Amino acid sequence: MEQRSETFGIVSGSGIFPILLAQNLKQAGKRVVAVAHYGETSHSLSDYVDRCVWIRLGQLGKIIKVLKKERASRAAFAGGISRVKMFRGSVLPDRRGLSLLWRVKSVKDDVILRALAEELESEGIEVVSGADYIKDCVPVCNQLTTRGLTEYEAFQAQIGWKAAKKIGEEDIGQTVVVSNGMVVAVEAVEGTDEAILRGGKLSSKRGAVVVKVSKPHQDLRLDLPTIGVGTIEKMKEAGATALILEKGKTMILDPASVIREADEAGIAIALFEEGDFGGA
Amino acid sequence: MEQRSETFGIVSGSGIFPILLAQNLKQAGKRVVAVAHYGETSHSLSDYVDRCVWIRLGQLGKIIKVLKKERASRAAFAGGISRVKMFRGSVLPDRRGLSLLWRVKSVKDDVILRALAEELESEGIEVVSGADYIKDCVPVCNQLTTRGLTEYEAFQAQIGWKAAKKIGEEDIGQTVVVSNGMVVAVEAVEGTDEAILRGGKLSSKRGAVVVKVSKPHQDLRLDLPTIGVGTIEKMKEAGATALILEKGKTMILDPASVIREADEAGIAIALFEEGDFGGA
Repeated sequence: MEQRSETFGIVSGSGIFPILLAQNLKQAGKRVVAVAHYGETSHSLSDYVDRCVWIRLGQLGKIIKVLKKERASRAAFAGGISRVKMFRGSVLPDRRGLSLLWRVKSVKDDVILRALAEELESEGIEVVSGADYIKDCVPVCNQLTTRGLTEYEAFQAQIGWKAAKKIGEEDIGQTVVVSNGMVVAVEAVEGTDEAILRGGKLSSKRGAVVVKVSKPHQDLRLDLPTIGVGTIEKMKEAGATALILEKGKTMILDPASVIREADEAGIAIALFEEGDFGGA
Repeated sequence: MEQRSETFGIVSGSGIFPILLAQNLKQAGKRVVAVAHYGETSHSLSDYVDRCVWIRLGQLGKIIKVLKKERASRAAFAGGISRVKMFRGSVLPDRRGLSLLWRVKSVKDDVILRALAEELESEGIEVVSGADYIKDCVPVCNQLTTRGLTEYEAFQAQIGWKAAKKIGEEDIGQTVVVSNGMVVAVEAVEGTDEAILRGGKLSSKRGAVVVKVSKPHQDLRLDLPTIGVGTIEKMKEAGATALILEKGKTMILDPASVIREADEAGIAIALFEEGDFGGA
Protein backbone atom coordinates (compact mmCIF):
# COMPACT_ATOMS: atom_id res chain seq x y z
CA MET A 1 0.00 0.00 0.00
CA GLU A 2 1.23 3.42 -0.90
CA GLN A 3 2.21 5.57 2.08
CA ARG A 4 0.44 8.90 1.54
CA SER A 5 1.90 11.95 3.20
CA GLU A 6 -0.19 14.05 5.56
CA THR A 7 -2.01 17.04 4.07
CA PHE A 8 -1.47 20.29 5.91
CA GLY A 9 -3.72 23.31 5.35
CA ILE A 10 -2.56 26.92 5.51
CA VAL A 11 -5.20 29.59 5.93
CA SER A 12 -3.16 32.36 4.41
CA GLY A 13 -3.14 36.09 5.01
CA SER A 14 -0.60 38.61 3.80
CA GLY A 15 3.19 38.78 3.96
CA ILE A 16 5.81 36.07 3.71
CA PHE A 17 4.78 33.96 6.72
CA PRO A 18 2.52 31.69 4.61
CA ILE A 19 5.39 31.16 2.15
CA LEU A 20 7.94 30.43 4.90
CA LEU A 21 5.54 27.99 6.49
CA ALA A 22 4.81 26.29 3.17
CA GLN A 23 8.55 25.91 2.47
CA ASN A 24 9.18 24.36 5.87
CA LEU A 25 6.22 22.01 5.59
CA LYS A 26 7.26 20.85 2.11
CA GLN A 27 10.79 20.23 3.39
CA ALA A 28 9.25 18.08 6.11
CA GLY A 29 7.60 16.05 3.38
CA LYS A 30 4.03 17.18 3.81
CA ARG A 31 1.44 17.86 1.15
CA VAL A 32 0.41 21.50 1.52
CA VAL A 33 -2.92 23.08 0.58
CA ALA A 34 -3.32 26.82 0.96
CA VAL A 35 -6.52 28.80 1.19
CA ALA A 36 -5.41 32.25 0.03
CA HIS A 37 -7.21 35.61 0.28
CA TYR A 38 -7.60 37.85 -2.76
CA GLY A 39 -6.00 41.22 -2.08
CA GLU A 40 -4.09 39.96 0.96
CA THR A 41 -2.06 36.88 0.13
CA SER A 42 1.02 37.10 -2.09
CA HIS A 43 0.41 35.66 -5.55
CA SER A 44 3.66 33.73 -5.40
CA LEU A 45 2.31 31.49 -2.62
CA SER A 46 0.96 29.23 -5.38
CA ASP A 47 4.56 28.33 -6.32
CA TYR A 48 5.27 26.86 -2.89
CA VAL A 49 2.22 24.68 -2.26
CA ASP A 50 0.62 21.63 -3.83
CA ARG A 51 -2.70 23.36 -4.18
CA CYS A 52 -3.78 26.97 -3.72
CA VAL A 53 -7.46 27.96 -3.59
CA TRP A 54 -8.28 31.66 -3.71
CA ILE A 55 -11.18 33.09 -1.70
CA ARG A 56 -12.55 36.48 -0.75
CA LEU A 57 -12.38 37.83 2.80
CA GLY A 58 -15.22 36.37 4.84
CA GLN A 59 -15.76 33.15 2.87
CA LEU A 60 -15.29 31.13 6.03
CA GLY A 61 -17.52 28.32 4.81
CA LYS A 62 -15.28 27.89 1.79
CA ILE A 63 -12.16 27.58 3.98
CA ILE A 64 -13.73 24.64 5.77
CA LYS A 65 -15.04 23.11 2.54
CA VAL A 66 -11.64 23.26 0.82
CA LEU A 67 -9.70 21.84 3.77
CA LYS A 68 -12.21 19.01 4.23
CA LYS A 69 -12.25 18.16 0.55
CA GLU A 70 -8.46 18.07 0.47
CA ARG A 71 -8.48 15.88 3.59
CA ALA A 72 -6.23 18.19 5.59
CA SER A 73 -5.62 16.69 9.03
CA ARG A 74 -4.00 19.83 10.40
CA ALA A 75 -4.21 23.49 9.58
CA ALA A 76 -2.46 26.68 10.63
CA PHE A 77 -3.29 30.35 10.22
CA ALA A 78 -0.43 32.32 8.72
CA GLY A 79 -0.07 35.96 7.81
CA GLY A 80 -2.16 38.93 8.73
CA ILE A 81 -5.51 40.03 7.43
CA SER A 82 -5.67 43.80 7.32
CA ARG A 83 -7.78 44.75 10.31
CA VAL A 84 -8.59 48.01 8.60
CA LYS A 85 -9.98 46.24 5.55
CA MET A 86 -11.83 43.68 7.62
CA PHE A 87 -13.22 46.51 9.61
CA ARG A 88 -14.24 48.87 6.84
CA GLY A 89 -16.74 46.37 5.61
CA SER A 90 -14.92 45.11 2.51
CA VAL A 91 -15.87 41.62 3.65
CA LEU A 92 -18.36 39.44 1.82
CA PRO A 93 -19.19 36.61 4.21
CA ASP A 94 -20.61 33.41 2.80
CA ARG A 95 -23.47 31.64 4.60
CA ARG A 96 -21.21 29.90 7.10
CA GLY A 97 -19.18 33.07 7.54
CA LEU A 98 -22.31 35.03 8.28
CA SER A 99 -23.56 32.51 10.79
CA LEU A 100 -20.16 32.54 12.51
CA LEU A 101 -20.02 36.35 12.62
CA TRP A 102 -23.58 36.41 13.92
CA ARG A 103 -22.70 33.91 16.62
CA VAL A 104 -19.56 35.67 17.88
CA LYS A 105 -21.15 39.13 17.50
CA SER A 106 -17.71 40.69 17.23
CA VAL A 107 -15.43 42.08 14.60
CA LYS A 108 -12.36 41.54 16.75
CA ASP A 109 -10.02 39.48 14.67
CA ASP A 110 -8.91 37.15 17.45
CA VAL A 111 -12.51 36.37 18.39
CA ILE A 112 -13.30 35.54 14.77
CA LEU A 113 -10.13 33.46 14.38
CA ARG A 114 -10.89 31.54 17.55
CA ALA A 115 -14.41 30.79 16.33
CA LEU A 116 -13.08 29.73 12.94
CA ALA A 117 -10.53 27.47 14.63
CA GLU A 118 -13.33 25.86 16.64
CA GLU A 119 -15.31 25.24 13.46
CA LEU A 120 -12.30 23.60 11.83
CA GLU A 121 -11.69 21.43 14.90
CA SER A 122 -15.35 20.38 14.98
CA GLU A 123 -14.77 19.11 11.44
CA GLY A 124 -11.82 17.03 12.64
CA ILE A 125 -9.09 19.37 11.41
CA GLU A 126 -6.59 20.08 14.17
CA VAL A 127 -5.59 23.73 14.34
CA VAL A 128 -1.94 24.14 15.24
CA SER A 129 0.49 27.00 15.56
CA GLY A 130 2.34 27.67 12.34
CA ALA A 131 5.21 28.95 14.48
CA ASP A 132 5.89 25.40 15.70
CA TYR A 133 6.89 24.49 12.14
CA ILE A 134 9.32 27.37 11.65
CA LYS A 135 10.93 27.49 15.06
CA ASP A 136 13.93 29.53 13.94
CA CYS A 137 11.57 32.45 13.56
CA VAL A 138 10.40 32.50 17.18
CA PRO A 139 13.49 33.44 19.19
CA VAL A 140 13.80 32.67 22.90
CA CYS A 141 17.15 34.43 23.46
CA ASN A 142 17.62 37.76 25.24
CA GLN A 143 19.07 39.71 22.39
CA LEU A 144 19.11 39.40 18.60
CA THR A 145 21.39 42.24 17.56
CA THR A 146 25.08 42.82 18.18
CA ARG A 147 24.20 45.76 20.36
CA GLY A 148 22.17 45.32 23.55
CA LEU A 149 19.96 47.92 25.21
CA THR A 150 21.48 51.01 26.77
CA GLU A 151 20.43 51.74 30.34
CA TYR A 152 18.20 54.52 29.02
CA GLU A 153 16.54 52.22 26.50
CA ALA A 154 16.00 49.56 29.17
CA PHE A 155 14.24 52.18 31.31
CA GLN A 156 11.96 53.11 28.39
CA ALA A 157 11.36 49.42 27.68
CA GLN A 158 10.01 48.90 31.16
CA ILE A 159 7.51 51.76 30.80
CA GLY A 160 6.45 50.51 27.38
CA TRP A 161 6.10 46.87 28.44
CA LYS A 162 3.71 47.75 31.25
CA ALA A 163 1.64 50.02 29.01
CA ALA A 164 1.56 47.56 26.11
CA LYS A 165 0.37 44.73 28.37
CA LYS A 166 -2.41 46.97 29.74
CA ILE A 167 -3.49 47.84 26.22
CA GLY A 168 -3.42 44.18 25.31
CA GLU A 169 -5.57 43.31 28.32
CA GLU A 170 -8.24 45.58 26.91
CA ASP A 171 -7.75 43.92 23.51
CA ILE A 172 -6.86 47.28 21.95
CA GLY A 173 -3.47 46.61 20.37
CA GLN A 174 0.02 45.15 20.84
CA THR A 175 2.40 48.03 20.24
CA VAL A 176 3.43 51.21 22.02
CA VAL A 177 6.16 53.74 21.32
CA VAL A 178 8.00 55.27 24.27
CA SER A 179 10.18 58.34 24.25
CA ASN A 180 11.60 60.41 27.06
CA GLY A 181 9.86 58.23 29.64
CA MET A 182 6.41 58.69 28.10
CA VAL A 183 4.16 56.56 25.93
CA VAL A 184 3.93 58.75 22.85
CA ALA A 185 1.88 56.45 20.62
CA VAL A 186 -0.49 53.55 21.20
CA GLU A 187 -1.51 51.18 18.45
CA ALA A 188 -5.20 50.44 18.05
CA VAL A 189 -6.60 49.55 14.61
CA GLU A 190 -4.11 51.46 12.47
CA GLY A 191 -1.43 48.78 12.74
CA THR A 192 2.13 48.62 14.02
CA ASP A 193 3.81 50.51 11.16
CA GLU A 194 1.50 53.51 11.46
CA ALA A 195 1.90 53.59 15.23
CA ILE A 196 5.71 53.51 14.89
CA LEU A 197 5.71 56.37 12.39
CA ARG A 198 3.37 58.48 14.51
CA GLY A 199 5.46 57.76 17.59
CA GLY A 200 8.55 58.88 15.72
CA LYS A 201 7.00 62.25 14.95
CA LEU A 202 6.12 62.73 18.61
CA SER A 203 9.45 61.55 20.00
CA SER A 204 12.23 63.56 21.55
CA LYS A 205 15.61 63.86 19.87
CA ARG A 206 16.94 61.01 22.00
CA GLY A 207 14.84 58.65 19.91
CA ALA A 208 12.15 56.16 20.76
CA VAL A 209 11.76 52.58 21.90
CA VAL A 210 9.15 50.37 20.25
CA VAL A 211 7.54 47.65 22.37
CA LYS A 212 5.44 44.92 20.75
CA VAL A 213 4.04 42.15 22.95
CA SER A 214 1.33 39.53 22.89
CA LYS A 215 -2.05 40.29 24.41
CA PRO A 216 -2.49 38.47 27.75
CA HIS A 217 -5.48 36.48 26.41
CA GLN A 218 -4.17 35.95 22.90
CA ASP A 219 -4.43 32.49 21.37
CA LEU A 220 -0.85 32.29 20.15
CA ARG A 221 -1.69 29.42 17.82
CA LEU A 222 -3.79 31.79 15.80
CA ASP A 223 -2.08 35.11 15.88
CA LEU A 224 1.50 35.53 17.07
CA PRO A 225 2.83 39.09 17.24
CA THR A 226 4.94 39.37 14.12
CA ILE A 227 7.69 41.67 12.92
CA GLY A 228 9.79 41.73 9.79
CA VAL A 229 12.26 43.82 7.82
CA GLY A 230 9.48 46.35 7.21
CA THR A 231 9.23 46.95 10.96
CA ILE A 232 12.93 47.86 11.13
CA GLU A 233 12.55 50.15 8.11
CA LYS A 234 9.69 51.99 9.78
CA MET A 235 11.75 52.28 12.97
CA LYS A 236 14.63 53.82 11.03
CA GLU A 237 12.22 56.29 9.48
CA ALA A 238 10.83 57.08 12.94
CA GLY A 239 14.23 57.49 14.59
CA ALA A 240 13.52 54.62 16.97
CA THR A 241 16.62 53.03 18.51
CA ALA A 242 15.39 49.81 20.11
CA LEU A 243 12.77 47.14 19.57
CA ILE A 244 11.43 45.18 22.56
CA LEU A 245 9.74 41.86 21.87
CA GLU A 246 8.33 39.01 23.91
CA LYS A 247 10.56 35.96 24.22
CA GLY A 248 9.09 32.85 22.63
CA LYS A 249 5.94 34.72 21.63
CA THR A 250 7.03 36.77 18.64
CA MET A 251 7.42 35.68 15.07
CA ILE A 252 10.36 37.18 13.23
CA LEU A 253 9.88 36.90 9.50
CA ASP A 254 13.20 36.40 7.72
CA PRO A 255 15.25 36.75 10.92
CA ALA A 256 18.64 36.96 9.16
CA SER A 257 17.58 40.03 7.17
CA VAL A 258 15.87 41.61 10.18
CA ILE A 259 19.01 41.27 12.29
CA ARG A 260 21.31 42.51 9.53
CA GLU A 261 19.08 45.51 8.84
CA ALA A 262 18.84 46.34 12.58
CA ASP A 263 22.60 45.97 13.12
CA GLU A 264 23.33 48.23 10.17
CA ALA A 265 20.95 50.85 11.56
CA GLY A 266 22.35 50.55 15.09
CA ILE A 267 18.95 49.39 16.34
CA ALA A 268 18.93 46.99 19.31
CA ILE A 269 16.43 44.12 19.40
CA ALA A 270 15.92 42.73 22.90
CA LEU A 271 13.52 40.06 24.16
CA PHE A 272 11.93 39.84 27.57
CA GLU A 273 9.31 37.75 29.31
CA GLU A 274 6.65 38.64 31.87
CA GLY A 275 8.74 38.27 35.03
CA ASP A 276 11.65 40.34 33.73
CA PHE A 277 10.10 43.65 34.66
CA GLY A 278 9.00 42.59 38.09
CA GLY A 279 5.34 42.44 37.06
CA ALA A 280 3.02 39.44 36.96
CA MET B 1 -8.30 102.05 55.66
CA GLU B 2 -8.73 101.22 52.01
CA GLN B 3 -10.19 97.80 51.30
CA ARG B 4 -7.93 96.21 48.68
CA SER B 5 -9.36 93.47 46.52
CA GLU B 6 -7.72 90.06 46.46
CA THR B 7 -5.17 89.43 43.71
CA PHE B 8 -5.73 86.23 41.78
CA GLY B 9 -3.01 84.73 39.56
CA ILE B 10 -3.68 82.83 36.34
CA VAL B 11 -0.88 80.65 34.99
CA SER B 12 -2.07 80.74 31.42
CA GLY B 13 -1.74 78.24 28.63
CA SER B 14 -3.51 78.25 25.26
CA GLY B 15 -7.15 78.61 24.25
CA ILE B 16 -9.97 80.65 25.69
CA PHE B 17 -10.05 79.14 29.19
CA PRO B 18 -7.65 81.79 30.62
CA ILE B 19 -9.81 84.53 29.12
CA LEU B 20 -13.07 83.01 30.42
CA LEU B 21 -11.53 82.65 33.86
CA ALA B 22 -10.19 86.22 33.82
CA GLN B 23 -13.63 87.55 32.84
CA ASN B 24 -15.34 85.66 35.65
CA LEU B 25 -12.76 86.73 38.24
CA LYS B 26 -13.00 90.37 37.21
CA GLN B 27 -16.79 90.18 37.46
CA ALA B 28 -16.34 88.86 40.98
CA GLY B 29 -14.33 91.99 41.75
CA LYS B 30 -10.87 90.47 41.91
CA ARG B 31 -7.60 91.92 40.71
CA VAL B 32 -6.21 89.50 38.14
CA VAL B 33 -2.56 88.94 37.20
CA ALA B 34 -1.77 86.54 34.37
CA VAL B 35 1.51 84.79 33.65
CA ALA B 36 1.21 84.07 29.94
CA HIS B 37 3.33 81.80 27.73
CA TYR B 38 4.80 83.05 24.45
CA GLY B 39 3.56 80.91 21.58
CA GLU B 40 0.77 79.36 23.65
CA THR B 41 -1.38 82.02 25.28
CA SER B 42 -3.70 84.22 23.22
CA HIS B 43 -2.39 87.78 22.87
CA SER B 44 -5.82 89.14 23.72
CA LEU B 45 -5.57 87.85 27.29
CA SER B 46 -3.87 91.15 28.17
CA ASP B 47 -7.18 92.95 27.53
CA TYR B 48 -8.96 91.00 30.25
CA VAL B 49 -6.52 91.19 33.16
CA ASP B 50 -4.98 93.88 35.34
CA ARG B 51 -1.48 92.75 34.56
CA CYS B 52 -0.07 90.27 32.07
CA VAL B 53 3.55 89.08 32.25
CA TRP B 54 4.87 87.06 29.31
CA ILE B 55 7.31 84.19 29.84
CA ARG B 56 8.83 81.36 27.84
CA LEU B 57 7.89 77.73 28.42
CA GLY B 58 9.88 76.41 31.36
CA GLN B 59 10.49 79.66 33.22
CA LEU B 60 8.94 78.20 36.34
CA GLY B 61 11.00 80.41 38.63
CA LYS B 62 9.59 83.46 36.94
CA ILE B 63 6.00 82.29 37.47
CA ILE B 64 6.62 82.16 41.22
CA LYS B 65 8.50 85.45 41.24
CA VAL B 66 5.73 87.31 39.39
CA LEU B 67 2.91 85.92 41.52
CA LYS B 68 4.79 86.67 44.75
CA LYS B 69 5.68 90.17 43.67
CA GLU B 70 2.07 90.86 42.73
CA ARG B 71 0.97 89.45 46.11
CA ALA B 72 -1.38 86.91 44.60
CA SER B 73 -3.08 84.97 47.38
CA ARG B 74 -4.56 82.37 45.01
CA ALA B 75 -3.63 81.06 41.62
CA ALA B 76 -5.14 78.73 39.04
CA PHE B 77 -3.73 76.98 35.99
CA ALA B 78 -5.82 77.59 32.90
CA GLY B 79 -5.43 76.46 29.32
CA GLY B 80 -3.27 73.77 27.83
CA ILE B 81 0.43 73.75 27.16
CA SER B 82 1.13 71.78 24.00
CA ARG B 83 2.49 68.47 25.22
CA VAL B 84 4.15 68.04 21.88
CA LYS B 85 6.03 71.32 22.21
CA MET B 86 6.91 70.68 25.82
CA PHE B 87 8.10 67.34 24.80
CA ARG B 88 10.10 68.21 21.72
CA GLY B 89 12.49 70.21 23.82
CA SER B 90 11.36 73.72 22.89
CA VAL B 91 11.52 74.47 26.60
CA LEU B 92 14.11 76.76 28.16
CA PRO B 93 13.87 76.17 31.89
CA ASP B 94 15.17 78.85 34.23
CA ARG B 95 17.18 77.90 37.32
CA ARG B 96 14.14 77.08 39.44
CA GLY B 97 12.51 75.34 36.50
CA LEU B 98 15.59 73.20 36.04
CA SER B 99 15.77 72.27 39.69
CA LEU B 100 12.08 71.33 39.63
CA LEU B 101 12.45 69.22 36.49
CA TRP B 102 15.51 67.58 38.01
CA ARG B 103 13.61 66.83 41.20
CA VAL B 104 10.53 65.29 39.54
CA LYS B 105 12.63 63.51 36.87
CA SER B 106 9.64 63.45 34.54
CA VAL B 107 8.33 65.27 31.53
CA LYS B 108 4.76 64.22 32.24
CA ASP B 109 2.77 67.41 32.33
CA ASP B 110 0.69 66.51 35.34
CA VAL B 111 3.76 65.59 37.38
CA ILE B 112 5.36 68.93 36.49
CA LEU B 113 2.15 70.85 37.20
CA ARG B 114 1.78 69.15 40.56
CA ALA B 115 5.36 70.01 41.49
CA LEU B 116 4.84 73.60 40.37
CA ALA B 117 1.63 73.79 42.42
CA GLU B 118 3.57 72.57 45.46
CA GLU B 119 6.20 75.24 44.93
CA LEU B 120 3.53 77.92 44.72
CA GLU B 121 1.85 76.66 47.88
CA SER B 122 5.15 76.58 49.73
CA GLU B 123 5.36 80.28 48.89
CA GLY B 124 1.94 80.88 50.47
CA ILE B 125 0.00 81.04 47.21
CA GLU B 126 -3.02 78.74 47.34
CA VAL B 127 -3.53 76.78 44.12
CA VAL B 128 -7.20 76.36 43.30
CA SER B 129 -9.20 74.91 40.44
CA GLY B 130 -10.05 77.51 37.83
CA ALA B 131 -13.17 75.47 37.09
CA ASP B 132 -14.61 76.47 40.47
CA TYR B 133 -14.79 80.05 39.20
CA ILE B 134 -16.59 79.25 35.95
CA LYS B 135 -19.01 76.60 37.14
CA ASP B 136 -21.32 76.87 34.14
CA CYS B 137 -18.57 75.24 32.11
CA VAL B 138 -18.38 72.03 34.18
CA PRO B 139 -21.73 70.30 33.63
CA VAL B 140 -23.08 67.70 36.02
CA CYS B 141 -26.18 66.75 34.00
CA ASN B 142 -26.61 63.53 31.99
CA GLN B 143 -27.01 65.04 28.57
CA LEU B 144 -26.13 68.35 26.96
CA THR B 145 -27.65 68.01 23.52
CA THR B 146 -31.26 67.71 22.40
CA ARG B 147 -30.58 64.17 21.28
CA GLY B 148 -29.49 61.47 23.74
CA LEU B 149 -27.44 58.36 22.97
CA THR B 150 -28.87 55.63 20.80
CA GLU B 151 -28.67 52.13 22.22
CA TYR B 152 -25.82 51.40 19.83
CA GLU B 153 -23.89 54.51 20.90
CA ALA B 154 -24.43 53.64 24.58
CA PHE B 155 -22.92 50.22 23.92
CA GLN B 156 -19.88 51.79 22.28
CA ALA B 157 -19.64 54.30 25.12
CA GLN B 158 -19.30 51.50 27.63
CA ILE B 159 -16.43 49.90 25.71
CA GLY B 160 -14.73 53.26 25.33
CA TRP B 161 -15.15 54.30 28.95
CA LYS B 162 -13.47 51.15 30.22
CA ALA B 163 -10.60 51.49 27.76
CA ALA B 164 -10.13 55.21 28.39
CA LYS B 165 -9.96 54.69 32.15
CA LYS B 166 -7.33 51.95 31.68
CA ILE B 167 -5.29 54.25 29.48
CA GLY B 168 -5.62 57.00 32.04
CA GLU B 169 -4.47 54.66 34.80
CA GLU B 170 -1.23 54.23 32.90
CA ASP B 171 -1.07 58.01 32.46
CA ILE B 172 -1.05 57.60 28.68
CA GLY B 173 -3.99 59.77 27.58
CA GLN B 174 -7.64 60.65 28.14
CA THR B 175 -9.37 59.94 24.86
CA VAL B 176 -10.36 56.88 22.84
CA VAL B 177 -12.43 56.50 19.70
CA VAL B 178 -14.74 53.48 19.42
CA SER B 179 -16.40 52.14 16.31
CA ASN B 180 -18.18 48.90 15.63
CA GLY B 181 -17.47 47.69 19.17
CA MET B 182 -13.71 48.23 18.89
CA VAL B 183 -11.31 50.85 20.15
CA VAL B 184 -10.00 52.19 16.85
CA ALA B 185 -7.78 55.00 18.18
CA VAL B 186 -6.08 55.73 21.48
CA GLU B 187 -4.73 59.16 22.32
CA ALA B 188 -1.20 59.37 23.67
CA VAL B 189 0.88 62.50 23.06
CA GLU B 190 -0.69 63.60 19.77
CA GLY B 191 -3.69 65.21 21.47
CA THR B 192 -7.45 64.74 21.33
CA ASP B 193 -8.07 66.33 17.92
CA GLU B 194 -5.51 64.13 16.15
CA ALA B 195 -6.84 61.01 17.86
CA ILE B 196 -10.40 61.87 16.80
CA LEU B 197 -9.37 62.41 13.18
CA ARG B 198 -7.38 59.17 13.07
CA GLY B 199 -10.27 57.33 14.68
CA GLY B 200 -12.58 58.71 12.03
CA LYS B 201 -10.44 57.29 9.24
CA LEU B 202 -10.48 53.86 10.89
CA SER B 203 -14.17 53.83 11.72
CA SER B 204 -16.94 51.86 10.11
CA LYS B 205 -19.71 53.57 8.17
CA ARG B 206 -21.91 53.53 11.26
CA GLY B 207 -19.72 56.24 12.73
CA ALA B 208 -17.70 56.51 15.90
CA VAL B 209 -18.11 57.43 19.53
CA VAL B 210 -15.50 59.63 21.21
CA VAL B 211 -14.88 59.10 24.93
CA LYS B 212 -12.84 61.63 26.92
CA VAL B 213 -12.45 61.11 30.66
CA SER B 214 -10.21 62.19 33.50
CA LYS B 215 -7.27 60.04 34.49
CA PRO B 216 -7.95 58.21 37.75
CA HIS B 217 -5.03 59.96 39.50
CA GLN B 218 -5.45 63.34 37.84
CA ASP B 219 -5.27 66.43 40.06
CA LEU B 220 -8.41 68.08 38.69
CA ARG B 221 -7.38 71.41 40.14
CA LEU B 222 -4.54 71.51 37.69
CA ASP B 223 -5.75 69.91 34.53
CA LEU B 224 -9.42 69.22 33.88
CA PRO B 225 -10.25 67.33 30.67
CA THR B 226 -11.43 70.07 28.34
CA ILE B 227 -13.44 70.20 25.13
CA GLY B 228 -14.64 73.08 22.99
CA VAL B 229 -16.21 73.92 19.66
CA GLY B 230 -13.04 72.66 17.96
CA THR B 231 -13.68 69.18 19.39
CA ILE B 232 -17.14 69.08 17.79
CA GLU B 233 -15.70 70.30 14.49
CA LYS B 234 -13.13 67.50 14.51
CA MET B 235 -15.88 64.99 15.34
CA LYS B 236 -17.93 66.17 12.37
CA GLU B 237 -14.87 65.78 10.14
CA ALA B 238 -14.32 62.28 11.56
CA GLY B 239 -17.93 61.19 11.20
CA ALA B 240 -18.25 60.65 14.94
CA THR B 241 -21.82 60.69 16.23
CA ALA B 242 -21.51 60.92 20.02
CA LEU B 243 -19.22 62.44 22.63
CA ILE B 244 -19.00 60.86 26.07
CA LEU B 245 -17.67 62.98 28.93
CA GLU B 246 -17.23 62.63 32.67
CA LYS B 247 -19.86 64.34 34.78
CA GLY B 248 -18.48 67.16 36.92
CA LYS B 249 -14.96 66.51 35.69
CA THR B 250 -14.95 68.03 32.22
CA MET B 251 -14.54 71.63 31.26
CA ILE B 252 -16.68 72.77 28.32
CA LEU B 253 -15.30 75.94 26.84
CA ASP B 254 -18.11 78.15 25.54
CA PRO B 255 -20.83 75.59 26.29
CA ALA B 256 -23.60 77.42 24.41
CA SER B 257 -21.65 77.26 21.14
CA VAL B 258 -20.56 73.67 21.75
CA ILE B 259 -24.15 72.56 22.30
CA ARG B 260 -25.49 74.50 19.31
CA GLU B 261 -22.76 73.12 17.05
CA ALA B 262 -23.37 69.55 18.27
CA ASP B 263 -27.16 69.84 17.90
CA GLU B 264 -26.80 71.15 14.37
CA ALA B 265 -24.51 68.24 13.49
CA GLY B 266 -26.78 65.67 15.15
CA ILE B 267 -24.01 64.77 17.59
CA ALA B 268 -25.09 63.62 21.06
CA ILE B 269 -23.11 64.75 24.12
CA ALA B 270 -23.72 62.53 27.15
CA LEU B 271 -22.12 62.60 30.59
CA PHE B 272 -21.49 59.67 32.87
CA GLU B 273 -19.72 58.99 36.14
CA GLU B 274 -17.72 56.01 37.37
CA GLY B 275 -20.58 53.90 38.72
CA ASP B 276 -22.75 54.24 35.61
CA PHE B 277 -21.01 51.47 33.72
CA GLY B 278 -21.01 49.05 36.61
CA GLY B 279 -17.27 49.42 37.18
CA ALA B 280 -15.48 50.83 40.22
